[in-house]
Formats: sequence, C-alpha cells, structure tokens
Amino acid sequence: MSGESVSQGDVPAADDVVTIEDVRAAADRLDGVVHRTPLDGSTTFADRSGAETVHLKLENMQRTGSFKLRGAYNAMAQLSPAERDRGVVAASAGNHAQGVALAGDILGIETTIVVPEITPAAKIEATRGYGAEVVVHGDVYEASATHAHELVEETGRTFIHPFDDDRIIAGQGTVGLELRDANPAFDTVLVSIGGGGLISGIATAMNADSGVRVVGVQPEGAAHAKPSLEMDEIHRLSEIDTVAEGIADARLLERTFAVIRERVDDVVAVSDTDLAVATTLLAERAKTVVEAAGAAPVAALLSGAVDVEGERVAAVVSGGNTDLTEHAELTRVGQEALGRFTTVRLAVDDWPTALGAVTETVEREGGGLEGVQRVPRSASGEPNRIPVELELRGSGPAHLGELVGQLDALDGVAVVDHGLGTAGE
Amino acid sequence: MSGESVSQGDVPAADDVVTIEDVRAAADRLDGVVHRTPLDGSTTFADRSGAETVHLKLENMQRTGSFKLRGAYNAMAQLSPAERDRGVVAASAGNHAQGVALAGDILGIETTIVVPEITPAAKIEATRGYGAEVVVHGDVYEASATHAHELVEETGRTFIHPFDDDRIIAGQGTVGLELRDANPAFDTVLVSIGGGGLISGIATAMNADSGVRVVGVQPEGAAHAKPSLEMDEIHRLSEIDTVAEGIADARLLERTFAVIRERVDDVVAVSDTDLAVATTLLAERAKTVVEAAGAAPVAALLSGAVDVEGERVAAVVSGGNTDLTEHAELTRVGQEALGRFTTVRLAVDDWPTALGAVTETVEREGGGLEGVQRVPRSASGEPNRIPVELELRGSGPAHLGELVGQLDALDGVAVVDHGLGTAGE
Repeated sequence: MSGESVSQGDVPAADDVVTIEDVRAAADRLDGVVHRTPLDGSTTFADRSGAETVHLKLENMQRTGSFKLRGAYNAMAQLSPAERDRGVVAASAGNHAQGVALAGDILGIETTIVVPEITPAAKIEATRGYGAEVVVHGDVYEASATHAHELVEETGRTFIHPFDDDRIIAGQGTVGLELRDANPAFDTVLVSIGGGGLISGIATAMNADSGVRVVGVQPEGAAHAKPSLEMDEIHRLSEIDTVAEGIADARLLERTFAVIRERVDDVVAVSDTDLAVATTLLAERAKTVVEAAGAAPVAALLSGAVDVEGERVAAVVSGGNTDLTEHAELTRVGQEALGRFTTVRLAVDDWPTALGAVTETVEREGGGLEGVQRVPRSASGEPNRIPVELELRGSGPAHLGELVGQLDALDGVAVVDHGLGTAGE
Repeated sequence: MSGESVSQGDVPAADDVVTIEDVRAAADRLDGVVHRTPLDGSTTFADRSGAETVHLKLENMQRTGSFKLRGAYNAMAQLSPAERDRGVVAASAGNHAQGVALAGDILGIETTIVVPEITPAAKIEATRGYGAEVVVHGDVYEASATHAHELVEETGRTFIHPFDDDRIIAGQGTVGLELRDANPAFDTVLVSIGGGGLISGIATAMNADSGVRVVGVQPEGAAHAKPSLEMDEIHRLSEIDTVAEGIADARLLERTFAVIRERVDDVVAVSDTDLAVATTLLAERAKTVVEAAGAAPVAALLSGAVDVEGERVAAVVSGGNTDLTEHAELTRVGQEALGRFTTVRLAVDDWPTALGAVTETVEREGGGLEGVQRVPRSASGEPNRIPVELELRGSGPAHLGELVGQLDALDGVAVVDHGLGTAGE
C-alpha cells in the first residue's frame, strides 16, 4: 500500500477524545430524533461465515439513509445560541451532507453544504430537501472543503467536520449503545472505517467494560488504518481506488487515530469484488439496499477476512445511499462473481430450428436466457455446423454446469465452449 | 374486467372461518418462530400521499422473505401426530413453498412441494435449502396443484393450501396483531390481495373492535375482489396480466370471500406502472427490496388510488422474493415512469470535438450519460451539421429540462429534439 507516515501533532489519550459518558449524553440528545434501527438476524450470513449468529445493524434504515445524522445532530445540538444563529457549513458529497442538513432542519440552524461538481443531482436534491443551501464548488472533495473553510472565514459560521470532532464521534457511538442491549451479548462487532468516526464511537461504547471484540473493515484500495496501527503513526495513502465511495478516505486524523489505537482490536481489508458479492447477498437474502461502503462488514464475514467461528456477530450496515443504476451495476458484478452468468458457444445443425429445443431446455431447467446470437464461423470450428452464442443465467456454477450438460445432450446441438472452467464439467 | 361469477357453495359467516381468538392462538404458536418484523416510518411516503404518517410493515424481512411462514406454521403445528408422521404436500412457485418448507423443517414434518416447470432454479434451491423435497411438474400452477393432489391421494399426506384454510388465515392475521400494538393507532391499513388469505387474517385482527379501516389492493390485471364485493358473489377473471406474480390470482375462494365481504372496507386497484414506481421508491427511500406484489399497498398510496389525507397509515409490504435481475428491470421501468431518462438529439458543428463541451456540461449539472452515438443525417435535418443522440439520466423531468437547456446554449451545439414534452421546455 503506497503512502507515507504523516507528521502529526501530539496524539491525545482516547479518554481525552471521548468516553462512554459522552456517548450516553449523546444518546439522551438523540432520543426521539434518530430511529433505533432494526437488528436483523441472518441465518444465511451465519451459515456462510461459520458464526453462531449474525445480526445486521441496519443504519441504512436510519433517517437520511445512514448513521451520519447521529453525529451531526449531537454536535449541532451543543452549539451556543450565538453559533446556532450564525449557522453551520459542511463539505460533503455524501451522507454527512444529508445528516447535517436534517440536523439543521430539526434544530432550526441554517446549513450550507459545499459539494464537488461531480455530485449527482439526486444527492443535491435530497440535501436541499432537508432545507440546506447547497453550493456546488470544486472538482474534488478537497476543493469543496477549502471553499467551505473560506465561507466559514467570511461568515463566522461553524464548520462541522465529518469525523474530526469529539461530538461527532460520541454521536456515532450511540450505535454501539444499541448493540450493547443485545442479550446474549455479541462476541464481535464489525464496523467499516473511512475517517474512523463511526468505529471510534462504537468502540468507545462497546469496549468500556464489555470485552466485545471490535474489528474495523476497509476496502483494499483505501486500507490506511492497518498500517497506521502497525506503525503506531498515522499512515496516509497516496492513492485511493475503491467502489466504496463512502469510506474512500486516505487517512485517519489525530482524534480518530487516538481512539482506534486504544480501543479497536483489529482491522481487516476486503476487495471490491467482496463488496459487490456482499451487496448482492444483502439485497437477495436480507432484502436490504446498501451502498458499497455499507456492505464492508458483511464482505469481511463472507470473504473470511475475519475469523468468527462459533461467535455471535454484529455487522454494522452503515448506509444505503446509492443510485439504483449504480446498485444494479454493483450487484451485477456480484452475481458474476457468484458464477451466475456464462457465455456458451454451441454448434448447431440447423438454424434457427435448433433454437426451439435449446430454449425449452433452458426453461425446463430453471435457467435464464439473456441473449442468443448467431456468430461468424471460425476457422477452427466444424465448417458444416452453425455457431451460436448463448448468454445464460443460472443459480450458480453447479446449476449452469447441469444446464450446459443438458444442452450438449440435445440432438443436433454440441457445446463447443463454455466459461465455467472445471466447475461446470 | 372480463370474467364470470362462479357458482359457489354456501358462503359461511366470517366468524365460522376465523375469529380474533383464532389469530391470538396463532400468535402464541408463532412466538419465537417468526420475526416480529420492523415497522418503518417513512416521511417520504407520508409527504407524497398526504397522510399524516406512513409506516411500512416489512414482512419482506420475515424469515423466508414473506409473511407466508406465519400461516404455514400455524396450520402445520395443528396437525395430529399421525398427520405429522405422514408429511405434507403443497403446490407453489413462490412464497408459500418456502413457508411450508421452513415450517416443516422447524416442526420435523417432511414436506413435498410441487412447482411448475418455469420456476427459477434459485427459488427451487431456496425451498430445498429448507429441507423440502421439490417436484417439478406441470407447465402452469394448476397442473402442479393437480399433481400435488395426486400425491396426496397416493401417499396419505396432508395438502397445505396457500389460503383456503382457516388455520392459514389465522396465522397470516398475526401481522394484524402486531399492527394493533402501534400507539397511536392506525386509521387505515393497506394490504395486497391475491387469494385473500393475508387480508382476511389482518382484517380479522384489526376489525374486531379497533375500528381501523382495512383496504385491499390488487393489480389492475388481477382485480377480482372489487367486482366480487360489488356483486356479492365470487368473480373469476378469465385472464390475468400483471407483473405482480405473487398476487396474480383469478379469484377468491369461499372462505376468504366470506371474511373479506364482512371485514374489509374497500378494495382498490393499481397499474403495473404504479407497482414499478412503488418498487423503485421503496428501494431508493426505504432501502428495502420488494417483489412487485409487495409494493402494491405503497403503489396505492402513491397513485392516489386510496385517499389517506391526514391519516395514520400502515402499508403491509408482504414479500421480497425477487430475482435481482427482475428487480433491476422493474426499477428501471419505475425510474422511466418518474422521468429520469430521456433521449436527446443534437446537431453539432464538429464531431467528435463538440463532445468535450457536452460531457463537461452533463457532469457539471449532475446528470448521467448512458450512451452517445453519431446517427445518420435525416432529410429534414440541417445538412451541414452532424446529428448526435445522447441518452441522458437525471433526477427527474425538471433536472433533465435544465440540462437540455444548458446543452442548447453551448456554442456549436443545437438541441433538435428531446423526449421531455413541455415539462422540459
């Protein structure tokens, strides 16, 4: 992982950042404001990971579609009357924007959110829908953040950082308080890490006296926390590459690093393919729509990145703010990785008459036919037969292998090639 | 709605089918077996329907992905020891199959499920995953059901009907008991109707003394309940045509008709487009994956098929067992209906150099570019300019109209045609 250690100020003690009392005080402020989100038991994910039980903490069903309202409200509720009157500024293309906007709406505080130019119109409208003023500025997040600080200088408004703020961290920690109420208690809690605010809060709520193991999860393309813990100094990545935009951060900041190094037990990484598979199975099995970042803890379970054999596990599903087109594309990748699609090349005696038997076979075997095409004969093929390509869909490699075998057994149809490897033979 | 009245046996009194005591007894049996599913408050759906509040009863998050386990377990738990030893048979391509299979697994009863040949492999595997024997037989459901009855004759097993069974109805009614616990109480509960088992149970649980209005929802292409109530005799449709496979029934049966005519206040119908839009907004806003049938109550809210102005409303989301490919296709239709896509025809001075300014404009305005193509010049076009087609995505007609205006204002680019009507001008 290319990057560098960052010269940093004094790293405080974790207790100087946030204590469980701070989280409890946040919970009192948030009472009646945030949803107590569902904790959904999943035998599918328990079976696939070897855990005794797996529960999904569905913060994608939180108001605004992510946990971010918790921290934003907790921070903004503590502003002085004068600060409230002047209003707040934030920079975010994502969930923090909506959290700050709704918190402002509830508290009667004017909010200005600076978003980069690439932000989809739907996200801007959602943020405006909560009453925020949205300023589109800059081609990347850093440029938006710089402009936000300029607005703070000019107007005297208060800047609300997405995670470098003790009140934000305490607010996110209220997720952990809700997890502590489970009976029997969890052995392991899995939480994604971007800037580290959510896991800092949750680890504070869980670890004070519970002995629950708290494990962080990052995408392989933005895995800065593990080297930071190993070197015991903040590591900044020089490059970020992941589908999980919500946690595509380059580094921790001092305050989250301070809490994580004392209270988080381990950090693991998952690939973009793991994230796509987890997003797919969350939709298929748990019937829940998540953004890629929200799937990270489940990806860690399914990929074996973390060993939870025989344990009671909670996986925090942090957010669900994704475009449906994007979700469809990501779950298509996940289904591909699960071996649901293959392209089969047939040689048939008669075209198009052979198609009748082919389509009947696909239907009888419960498969799907996404495409069929007569293709040019290749030099290596049998010149007296007609090459046809099928795009097939099935429940997995075993089912597709079965289906390919049935097609090959048809009179006048030969399977010349298929993409299943030996799994399909 | 083409169809006919069905000569029928004596229709019993509703109380001879099911009472609230039967539902309460079912709830005792189901305690610890079924999830008490989340009741998710949605300001989006309240705002869009004029209701004071809208709560989604998320039975798509029930074990097996639908409410069907409730009735199946309640029926099968009441079998005699001899009946349990012989096992049960059901016919279903859908949610009832999985409900019966899991109930059998929990109760230690052997289950045989007959499914029609068109059933996707994934559904068969899910049913087998609960320990059922799956028999693929018949090209339509009726043929499967006939074969199931033959198996019953041959083997002495008990047939478990999906809704024509008082114990099934009582089991489904436990959804209603959970809705009754809401405080303050609901004014209206919206429930889909296929064969009528779910709404019969819920209406029995709600209406005994609560005064809550219970409204049924059907797809326009399978809307048999309304004519049945109006004529006070069971109406059978001669043809069914709807995307909502889970409720694509042709008629009520005597026992559900008996309960519905006494206890259901009204029945409304929604179009397939309404179902697609509701499925889309449930995914985008409530972050929940539903099958088309499960979206029917929300479709009734959004389409205005039912007037809920100022009311506290519960919408029962009955199931979420859908293929992700199918879900992606349905939500694509929903997004189209919401005006998120349009094809724009440009005439540009220079090809491909004009594309730079075009793509930059699309990005800056937060739009999406799904396709771009140089197309043949038409006789009516300006012959010295190059026609280009863009497929654009945006948050809705207003946003796309804005975007089209920005494109038209570019030097060397003229918008010749767009699909937005006057909304985009």
